[in-house]
Amino acid sequence: MTSPSCLTLLTDFGLQDVYVGVMKGAIAQIDPRITVIDLTHAVPPQDVVTARFHLLSAYPYFPAGTVHVAVVDPGVGTTRRAIAIQTQRGVLVGPDNGLFSGILQTFPEEAIAAVELNQPQYWRSCSLSATFHGRDIFAPVGAHLATGVPLHQVGEAIALDSILHSPILPYQPTPEGFLGCIQYIDHFGNAITNIPDSCLPVAWTVLLKGRTIPGRRTYGDGQPGEPVALVGSHGWVEVAIAQGNAHTALQIKVGDSVEIQRCDRVHNSLDTT
Amino acid sequence: MTSPSCLTLLTDFGLQDVYVGVMKGAIAQIDPRITVIDLTHAVPPQDVVTARFHLLSAYPYFPAGTVHVAVVDPGVGTTRRAIAIQTQRGVLVGPDNGLFSGILQTFPEEAIAAVELNQPQYWRSCSLSATFHGRDIFAPVGAHLATGVPLHQVGEAIALDSILHSPILPYQPTPEGFLGCIQYIDHFGNAITNIPDSCLPVAWTVLLKGRTIPGRRTYGDGQPGEPVALVGSHGWVEVAIAQGNAHTALQIKVGDSVEIQRCDRVHNSLDTT
Amino acid sequence: MTSPSCLTLLTDFGLQDVYVGVMKGAIAQIDPRITVIDLTHAVPPQDVVTARFHLLSAYPYFPAGTVHVAVVDPGVGTTRRAIAIQTQRGVLVGPDNGLFSGILQTFPEEAIAAVELNQPQYWRSCSLSATFHGRDIFAPVGAHLATGVPLHQVGEAIALDSILHSPILPYQPTPEGFLGCIQYIDHFGNAITNIPDSCLPVAWTVLLKGRTIPGRRTYGDGQPGEPVALVGSHGWVEVAIAQGNAHTALQIKVGDSVEIQRCDRVHNSLDTT
Repeated sequence: MTSPSCLTLLTDFGLQDVYVGVMKGAIAQIDPRITVIDLTHAVPPQDVVTARFHLLSAYPYFPAGTVHVAVVDPGVGTTRRAIAIQTQRGVLVGPDNGLFSGILQTFPEEAIAAVELNQPQYWRSCSLSATFHGRDIFAPVGAHLATGVPLHQVGEAIALDSILHSPILPYQPTPEGFLGCIQYIDHFGNAITNIPDSCLPVAWTVLLKGRTIPGRRTYGDGQPGEPVALVGSHGWVEVAIAQGNAHTALQIKVGDSVEIQRCDRVHNSLDTT
Repeated sequence: MTSPSCLTLLTDFGLQDVYVGVMKGAIAQIDPRITVIDLTHAVPPQDVVTARFHLLSAYPYFPAGTVHVAVVDPGVGTTRRAIAIQTQRGVLVGPDNGLFSGILQTFPEEAIAAVELNQPQYWRSCSLSATFHGRDIFAPVGAHLATGVPLHQVGEAIALDSILHSPILPYQPTPEGFLGCIQYIDHFGNAITNIPDSCLPVAWTVLLKGRTIPGRRTYGDGQPGEPVALVGSHGWVEVAIAQGNAHTALQIKVGDSVEIQRCDRVHNSLDTT
Repeated sequence: MTSPSCLTLLTDFGLQDVYVGVMKGAIAQIDPRITVIDLTHAVPPQDVVTARFHLLSAYPYFPAGTVHVAVVDPGVGTTRRAIAIQTQRGVLVGPDNGLFSGILQTFPEEAIAAVELNQPQYWRSCSLSATFHGRDIFAPVGAHLATGVPLHQVGEAIALDSILHSPILPYQPTPEGFLGCIQYIDHFGNAITNIPDSCLPVAWTVLLKGRTIPGRRTYGDGQPGEPVALVGSHGWVEVAIAQGNAHTALQIKVGDSVEIQRCDRVHNSLDTT
């Protein structure tokens, strides 16, 4: 009997209620040995775009075979499909509402197959709730997949290109560099753009809300209180304040425009590796 | 050596401090293989009634033999008893203050035996704190029970009917249906009544704060922004707003009166299974 | 193949983002069997002093061999060292910024050896981020240590007395007892002083903000709403309000002066063990 795969959970359920715990109970009923890892449960209610960002940020850092169960599901109980997608690194399980667009568009060559979940023998036995498919469908199916049930047994094959995509805000080239926007603001108040590090010239600055912010290597390269731009751990350019909160200090909002511009001089005052 | 049972934790400790982590340390000292699942730690301080609601909501969804350790304990260090209750589905461990009333009154036939915890060899060795029985008594006893120690070894038998019950607000029949109240408001702002789905006629509406709200099957059956009533995943009638927050939009509070009324027509505009 | 040790995580990352989940992914890539326990992730951003308090509070309650990974790291990406410290109870892993001062000063005889982490074969393979050493260095090194890799393999020996200490606010004797201060306020609003129970005379009172508060044994020894002083579960004198919140009711702040004074009479009105 081989060990089960890891299983991650991402929801908009919060931690005030027992909803997340109950999903873990449903998983433990199938196999209590599954290592369950919370990505986050603090996605704003019904915010598929933020959930998509989180899933993409986390996806590369898990063991091969990991099952990612994501439940941000404004259409629960309606005709939206419940799906599972096999990729080269693992399996994605959740509603077909664009949650997985970030992963599928960033790693298009990794998608292998997809199914619509329509095999109730892999769902929670007893009655099916019309409001909590996380407990009754997604967690049990994810647990069965983590124990080695193959994808084709839990549903009927669907075309990969039939999966719903939510539009990702594009960035575009400008004469001086690239124009994009703020896609997410994290717990530290760091403002994360939609411009990947692959776009960056050797030396660069960020234009944001009329400010020119030097591109550096790490938070500690700025003086405390000074705005800095850098490549965050997720691979996107972000704006931060060393030992401070860029969100509140600079009044940044999701959607604000950002331009990356080439410049002549590298701004790593403290450290230039 | 058989695998230990699952163990759940429910407290009012919050996640700001290390109190929950320390309970898990005490459990790991007994057996690190125990699968520990958090129900919630966001019960308002000393709020036994909310804790009782959460325990009842979660209880049916865990594997047979699961040990539920609940610590909402305004009387810690006083003469209130520490107890464990064997049921057909698992074991309940915590202070004798009404925490388990919801489970015991809803599933009265499942209670098998109860003990008062008075065997210090199953407590945390070293000195006993007068303020943190979660760490020093309830978590260690729960862990020993999860590893297979029988109930009668961890304490002295007490009568099941000696266990403290906290009063549950009743619902009552009216000429048109049933009269109850809001017992809990969840993270999504859904307002959960104390009226179970077993009371519902085929077609029904809810009267709440002067509004008549149609009874439907799922959140997606309403237009975005429209109040809907439905049976929540826990089995009680609840009032929600499709893709919105009923708590803030309708100014609902715990304790508000709710009446379910029979009506002539089923309100499932989008889906009528 | 022996079982891996427990591993705890303490950070200032919050639970809004996937940062904590990603650290657990990095650990699972090394060994998914490691039991990972969250101490807390709600340390205020960059607040090394609060993190130090939490680590010391939790440290005594974990199994022998536990690896404690702590990441509150305002200097990430600068020249601050990354270290691991072997103690008689386990291993401490994190930045060299004073995080471990509380443990090292309270249990000085338990420290055995320390290393600076400079062996990249124990880090996350692929590229090293300049901003997220929790994911790329501390979690992987901690996981390798939990699986049994010896300390001297993950880094180069450094002198124990070279480890950075952050100053701990001292308490001092007075003619009537001891003078100290509030070092932390917890989720319940309990105000925890820096005066350990070992200082306490048989009968005592606390002077705080002009009030004289009786020293008792447990929360339940006060009338609801009454301020009480007692020895908290962590071993320090704290000020609480029975079934209330001392922080808000008495307007206590971290840093407020506190004096313990001997008195003639024990104040255990309800219970005097």
